[in-house]
Amino acid sequence: MEYTLVSKMFTNPNGIEVLLPAPVEPKSELLFNAGVYDGAVPFKETNAGWHGYIPWTDHPQWKQLAKEILDGAQQQAIESPFKPGQAAYDDQTTKLRVTGGIVGTRFSEYFMRLGAVLYNWPAESWETIKKDKDRSMLHVLSFPYNGEATKDDIVKHVITPNPLHFVRNHGNIPIIDANTWLLELGGLVNQPKSIKFDQLKSGFPTKTVTATLVCSGTRRKEQQMEALGEFDELINAPWTEQALGTARWTGVTLKTLVDYCGGLRDEATDIEFYGADTYFKRNKPDNYIVSIPIRKMEDTIIAFEMNGELLTPTHGAPVRAVVPGYIGARSVKWLYRIKALPHPSLAPVQSEEYLYFTHQMGKHNFRWSDGFQIGGMPISSAIMSPKNGEVVYHNGKVKVTGWAYTGGTSNWVERVEVSPNGGSDWYPVSTAQLSQKFWWAWRLFAVEVPTPAQGYLDFTVRAWDGNMNTQPTLVRDGWNWDTHVTNSCHHIQIYSVNLSDPQTALRLAQLHKHGLAFEPVHKPLEMELEDEVEYLNRIREGSIRRDPVE
Amino acid sequence: MEYTLVSKMFTNPNGIEVLLPAPVEPKSELLFNAGVYDGAVPFKETNAGWHGYIPWTDHPQWKQLAKEILDGAQQQAIESPFKPGQAAYDDQTTKLRVTGGIVGTRFSEYFMRLGAVLYNWPAESWETIKKDKDRSMLHVLSFPYNGEATKDDIVKHVITPNPLHFVRNHGNIPIIDANTWLLELGGLVNQPKSIKFDQLKSGFPTKTVTATLVCSGTRRKEQQMEALGEFDELINAPWTEQALGTARWTGVTLKTLVDYCGGLRDEATDIEFYGADTYFKRNKPDNYIVSIPIRKMEDTIIAFEMNGELLTPTHGAPVRAVVPGYIGARSVKWLYRIKALPHPSLAPVQSEEYLYFTHQMGKHNFRWSDGFQIGGMPISSAIMSPKNGEVVYHNGKVKVTGWAYTGGTSNWVERVEVSPNGGSDWYPVSTAQLSQKFWWAWRLFAVEVPTPAQGYLDFTVRAWDGNMNTQPTLVRDGWNWDTHVTNSCHHIQIYSVNLSDPQTALRLAQLHKHGLAFEPVHKPLEMELEDEVEYLNRIREGSIRRDPVE
Repeated sequence: MEYTLVSKMFTNPNGIEVLLPAPVEPKSELLFNAGVYDGAVPFKETNAGWHGYIPWTDHPQWKQLAKEILDGAQQQAIESPFKPGQAAYDDQTTKLRVTGGIVGTRFSEYFMRLGAVLYNWPAESWETIKKDKDRSMLHVLSFPYNGEATKDDIVKHVITPNPLHFVRNHGNIPIIDANTWLLELGGLVNQPKSIKFDQLKSGFPTKTVTATLVCSGTRRKEQQMEALGEFDELINAPWTEQALGTARWTGVTLKTLVDYCGGLRDEATDIEFYGADTYFKRNKPDNYIVSIPIRKMEDTIIAFEMNGELLTPTHGAPVRAVVPGYIGARSVKWLYRIKALPHPSLAPVQSEEYLYFTHQMGKHNFRWSDGFQIGGMPISSAIMSPKNGEVVYHNGKVKVTGWAYTGGTSNWVERVEVSPNGGSDWYPVSTAQLSQKFWWAWRLFAVEVPTPAQGYLDFTVRAWDGNMNTQPTLVRDGWNWDTHVTNSCHHIQIYSVNLSDPQTALRLAQLHKHGLAFEPVHKPLEMELEDEVEYLNRIREGSIRRDPVE
Repeated sequence: MEYTLVSKMFTNPNGIEVLLPAPVEPKSELLFNAGVYDGAVPFKETNAGWHGYIPWTDHPQWKQLAKEILDGAQQQAIESPFKPGQAAYDDQTTKLRVTGGIVGTRFSEYFMRLGAVLYNWPAESWETIKKDKDRSMLHVLSFPYNGEATKDDIVKHVITPNPLHFVRNHGNIPIIDANTWLLELGGLVNQPKSIKFDQLKSGFPTKTVTATLVCSGTRRKEQQMEALGEFDELINAPWTEQALGTARWTGVTLKTLVDYCGGLRDEATDIEFYGADTYFKRNKPDNYIVSIPIRKMEDTIIAFEMNGELLTPTHGAPVRAVVPGYIGARSVKWLYRIKALPHPSLAPVQSEEYLYFTHQMGKHNFRWSDGFQIGGMPISSAIMSPKNGEVVYHNGKVKVTGWAYTGGTSNWVERVEVSPNGGSDWYPVSTAQLSQKFWWAWRLFAVEVPTPAQGYLDFTVRAWDGNMNTQPTLVRDGWNWDTHVTNSCHHIQIYSVNLSDPQTALRLAQLHKHGLAFEPVHKPLEMELEDEVEYLNRIREGSIRRDPVE
């Protein structure tokens, strides 16, 4: 007899045989499967000093040609500039490896297959990241670059140092010379204008706001853990809990600029932002475009400084939007155009991608308009230490640190509570253990929680906003197709060793005497725990004896 | 700047630096790290026709010498007869790979390092498995061999065919000639006796009992998923839900044999069984020894047939014990000695290994006598189909199959209920959908459960015994060090596609038209879902528009 693996073949309703998502090694992404286009193309960089910018939006025929090239590409391998190792990703969150980070082959392929100037952008963007970001960053997606700080770094700074701020790119990183940069203000404004960088910096009253930016995908990994095992099909980055950061942003409010244009026309309801980066949807390139409702004009900063320094290319130099209270995806980087509209942006980022569906919606039935466009984020929080899977040696109290944040307007984190037992008991974090309250920013916390119990413990945290909204209990309470907005209570499991328990102190002393390490916890103990006499006595006492006496 | 992996170093209380259990690739076990002993040894096979049996129990000095050899072995590599591929293991239970099955290096090493006749036993045992078992078996541990049937096979047969019956070995597989086999009956009996095979088979009234044997580790994987990520340190097999099987066992009751010995002496409370296989604990060999309380004498069969056929070597030929209602570990295979005692067996299998601790007990504080010796199993059940992670296409009802079992005496499965929503609604399984009630066996079930909902659904099952005991809700309700007795409600997640929903039927027709497969579910849909006009209309209707009208 021979033994082989049993695999699970399934015939889907279209009669196609598929291998069901299998619990196998994390797949590395496919190698490029098409060659570089070597014909002549009309699309190019058009503005001097604007490297990495192609004005797709203004040339629909360029977009169409690019799509045709990608649709009809020859099946021929070209080499990716990224290796799986570059995207290697130290999973601090989950004890089980879900994915090793995403190499970003799919998006690199779009750029490289089109050839021309786009060919080098993935590799160039990576070089920019290496210049601008700290080497400790965890790479979640190599291209477009998505990276988050470590848990330890997140809780060190209420104002995140620029090199540690999370990055969620959607395409390449343009390098735009501030001297040639120009901002167009148009659409449903009374007097369309253009503004140069020096004018923006010196010609208007400036404002500095402390704001947390957060990706709507933060903590996505918890939703992925609930899903079908198709982690490699989910093209969105497998963020843990650090896809957020806080900075002091300086610039001019959007309201000021709109006033400079003589205000809005009556029909205007939304204001669109254009970013110079290139973004693809179904093989079609465009610039990065989203909008915000006009009620956010006064809060929104058209920013050129981040924590007192000019923006780096990675964070949108020379100028970006910062929309406090909204997900980061609305804070457009490499901003070059502002346009007032009679409806929200119809560009795919906002209308097809950052959508929030109910649990019952999926590939089998959703339309884009069944989801709603994600703006302000709900109350959320996460434990940064201890780490999931950590063996915690303590004397009856475990120190827990983390962050809490809420989006929206005139709303903030009011209270944080930590539970050492999965949500049965909740210990409040006092005001002194919470960082300062800002209008638009997170609060960090550090608290010691009574923990008499030993063994595997489920620690969890919940925050409350000023209106007493708190977080759902379980990940699946908010599971949604596309796995956005994970704000259920963040749970970690630790192995608790309470040194104030005499029997535990004795055991650790015994281990020390025998020269045995405690960890790994499940490594069998190579020592005698009791002699036969003691064991028999315990049987006679009734400790082990199973049968009743009478 | 350069980027590297962040690793988690930790200094334990003994000052030893350890890398915290990391979410990395399943480790293959260490290669052997010591050479084969080539000195002369006294231990050997002593009984003609009893290949694979060394009478360790009768020669304490042999045990001691073997221990000294293993303790002092030279650090020198020898090659394992097992490769990770042999233990490859198709995980049908969990969407996340926990471990790829265990190669069994640790136990093979004990045998091979001692050299002499033991050297070949691991490889020989593997050959016996290949002869006796079906090729579809899932190998959970190569040596000692642990294997379970597939989920599909389990629910096909109320009486499990012998080649599909689960196997939980603790050492090698002896090959014992029935003609030379002899059973000793001694200890606290009034007249010690010996019995030959023909005499056992023909000299006493025989009895046939239909009994399910179950490993106390069945469904262990669910507990492992809760644990620290130290799956490779847990030396116990990572069973899914198929470490059980039902057979019609034929033999002579233990009561009959004890009566043949003139009955028990008054002090006797327990009866020990000796198996001819070799088992190691902390480098020390012994034969496999456990006991049962005397109240189980009448239920217990000293069996020579399994489903009407003589036992195969894998299942204990020529004679084994079968203790209905108790975990399989008490049903000793290759039985050669029965001994009445004034206390439960003090051999390590029962006194140090098959123990059930509270959640609060662990390496940091437990003594063996803090656990109790596992005998009868509590009520349990599991879903065999659909499989976890399966995309289920249905018309509003999902067919669920599985098993339910309880141990104990005068107890059986009375009711089974299935929930399509994580335990909120429970649909009963009717008597007609349950297999026959036996005194000592499982019941299989098949039921259609109303399932209007789509997307990820949490299906779960619970069974009730005749005393209305049912199962705990969550795995962690019963989590215990050594991860025995997993009987919490078995949960699976499916992706439900309800074809009776018109919007879903429409979408599948669209996919078919575009030549697109539905799976993998998360593979992005490369087609337009709505045109701009439709989308804008939905915005104007208020479906997407976020701002209130007034």
